[in-house]
Amino acid sequence: MLIVLDGLGGLPLVPGGPTELEAANTPNLDQLARESVTGVHHPMEIGVTPGSGPGHLALFGYDPVADSIGRGALSAIGLGIELGDHDLAVRLNFCTLDGNGNVTDRRAGRISTELNQQLIAKLNGIHAPDVSLELAAERRHRAVLVLRGEGLDARVRETDPQAIGVPPLAPDALHPAAEHTSRILTGFAHQVGTSIGNEQPANFVLMRGYGQYRVLPSLESLYQLRAACLAVYPMYRGVARAVGMKILPVTEEPNNQMEELEKAWDAFDFFFVHIKETDTLGEDGDFDGKKRAIEAVDRWLPRVRDLKPDVLVVTGDHSTPAKLRAHSWHPVPLLLWGSLARSDHVEAFNESACLSGGLGHIPARSILPLMLAHGQRLAKYGA
Amino acid sequence: MLIVLDGLGGLPLVPGGPTELEAANTPNLDQLARESVTGVHHPMEIGVTPGSGPGHLALFGYDPVADSIGRGALSAIGLGIELGDHDLAVRLNFCTLDGNGNVTDRRAGRISTELNQQLIAKLNGIHAPDVSLELAAERRHRAVLVLRGEGLDARVRETDPQAIGVPPLAPDALHPAAEHTSRILTGFAHQVGTSIGNEQPANFVLMRGYGQYRVLPSLESLYQLRAACLAVYPMYRGVARAVGMKILPVTEEPNNQMEELEKAWDAFDFFFVHIKETDTLGEDGDFDGKKRAIEAVDRWLPRVRDLKPDVLVVTGDHSTPAKLRAHSWHPVPLLLWGSLARSDHVEAFNESACLSGGLGHIPARSILPLMLAHGQRLAKYGA
Repeated sequence: MLIVLDGLGGLPLVPGGPTELEAANTPNLDQLARESVTGVHHPMEIGVTPGSGPGHLALFGYDPVADSIGRGALSAIGLGIELGDHDLAVRLNFCTLDGNGNVTDRRAGRISTELNQQLIAKLNGIHAPDVSLELAAERRHRAVLVLRGEGLDARVRETDPQAIGVPPLAPDALHPAAEHTSRILTGFAHQVGTSIGNEQPANFVLMRGYGQYRVLPSLESLYQLRAACLAVYPMYRGVARAVGMKILPVTEEPNNQMEELEKAWDAFDFFFVHIKETDTLGEDGDFDGKKRAIEAVDRWLPRVRDLKPDVLVVTGDHSTPAKLRAHSWHPVPLLLWGSLARSDHVEAFNESACLSGGLGHIPARSILPLMLAHGQRLAKYGA
Repeated sequence: MLIVLDGLGGLPLVPGGPTELEAANTPNLDQLARESVTGVHHPMEIGVTPGSGPGHLALFGYDPVADSIGRGALSAIGLGIELGDHDLAVRLNFCTLDGNGNVTDRRAGRISTELNQQLIAKLNGIHAPDVSLELAAERRHRAVLVLRGEGLDARVRETDPQAIGVPPLAPDALHPAAEHTSRILTGFAHQVGTSIGNEQPANFVLMRGYGQYRVLPSLESLYQLRAACLAVYPMYRGVARAVGMKILPVTEEPNNQMEELEKAWDAFDFFFVHIKETDTLGEDGDFDGKKRAIEAVDRWLPRVRDLKPDVLVVTGDHSTPAKLRAHSWHPVPLLLWGSLARSDHVEAFNESACLSGGLGHIPARSILPLMLAHGQRLAKYGA
């Protein structure tokens, strides 16, 4: 069982202070750390900050660069949209522009999913020459656009300026083969402005994460794992589906993930449980909120342990320090519990304690092999 | 800002004793370590001892093997010699031979730069068939020979026997294509013996670091960094120039590097400051001298901190333990200071304390990406 607290790693708000995880009251995680082998992981190359797609691919044992899939495609398949080999998916973020066309909020105040759905209904009237468009609301301010047609190419500039007070970028072609796609997206953006430009707070979209869908070898084909995903957000369901996990239905209701886990327990070999709030609150700069989200997971742990997993890993896919209000490159604490874990002297689950753990400082890609090893699912190499 | 104390890492002279860095009184470095994230780095593959060229290429984020440039070429460009694509540069060390032709001192007592220049003037009369020769004094016992002509090839045996009491090796061809170059260098060495064989203490040269110059992608093209180098020794200027740094003029006067740094502070994004003495004294087996050289840098640090760098790294390019009188493979202590560094519990800057630092044990190549990350100069990978 793999529990991912999205954006778990943090930073102190003041020099010498605690991180979010260090500030949180986590008696169950600390007890688990005492019984576990711990460490920290680097999601990608040292110093590189991952998006959520590559961060999760690494946790699932894939190469986050060579096996990369655009975020738009992950969101689309997470929403159950079927993607053909040549379809192009784009992640949309509803945003707020001021009267001068400058971005004032890259997430439009994280509008409700209901408002998102209403806006998508308005945008559904947009057409483009030579391609068919499919739009779908994801959650809060996130949505997906799928383009279907000939000659689509992902090498187009993302329009999110990653800053406020400046206008969105143009979806320029970054390669001559992408001129056609660039023209379609330019026209789409123009029509979005015409259609919802007078709405508030969401009056435009930023386009990112262009990608075609690649079928990766499944966890079942690689490791004979029947794997299941318990995630609320479509993007995480998408990346889980891309590696062949069964997507179990879960709702936002606080205990629903736990209840569905208990129900499905006997039917699978591997469970991926995704907690989104830690990342969202980190991105909002809400140190105390992120701390409380960690504490909520801690309170859950006794029920997880009652299920008696063979191997239990708790970690994050990357750091999202509230201080930075963004993903970061800092290493992520990690614990691995199991009857064959060679436990270390670490007495608490947090960034500094795990630095001296028995797993050392490892790439995220090594976590799944370690889980399989501790579950005695890997054969000896060589005679 | 990257401060490199050349050959920083050391060894105890007696079991259980302190290293040079542990013996040094370094209140400013220790205070910096308390505020920083620390670790150790391996310059190359674990167990491999680097020369200064590859050691610095790794610190600048390049692959020290794939991007290697011969030391001779680095010294030549550091001296301002223009190298064409096919020119071959050779590093020369003046040495002392006894009456039997055996090496008694591989560095000729580290002769003065003035004597070096006088000897180079004598050697300037040497000619070779089919190629033109250019000789230049570097500093102390080091000089450079540049060959210009057709069909030059670096695959020739280095003549430094790396031992005393034995004669220099012959510059034999290590590949059939290098026969021509081997003949030129054999003739050159013969004429050196004829020309200065009766001098003392420098009466011959050892030839190493054969190399053609390769243009590497610059730090500016890779990372949009306007980088500057403050180094006294030409070889280090050469490797800095090879990666596109601006070479600022500095003298040997003890405070000159600091003064030039302060003057240039606003004009660049990245500074590389190179301290040579730690390595030289380590190679001389002078434990106390190396200790004092470290203490001199420590006294400098308040002025560096007054400049308020965003990110400050202090480390070495490799270890040069006085006990070994040579470069070594031992990992090198490292500290990274910056407002986004997730500080650890390390309270002093030395080999043993940094072992448990938050950066872990990393390859030298990861240092520049970490500096860029902590300076918020890297984009997120994937949406």
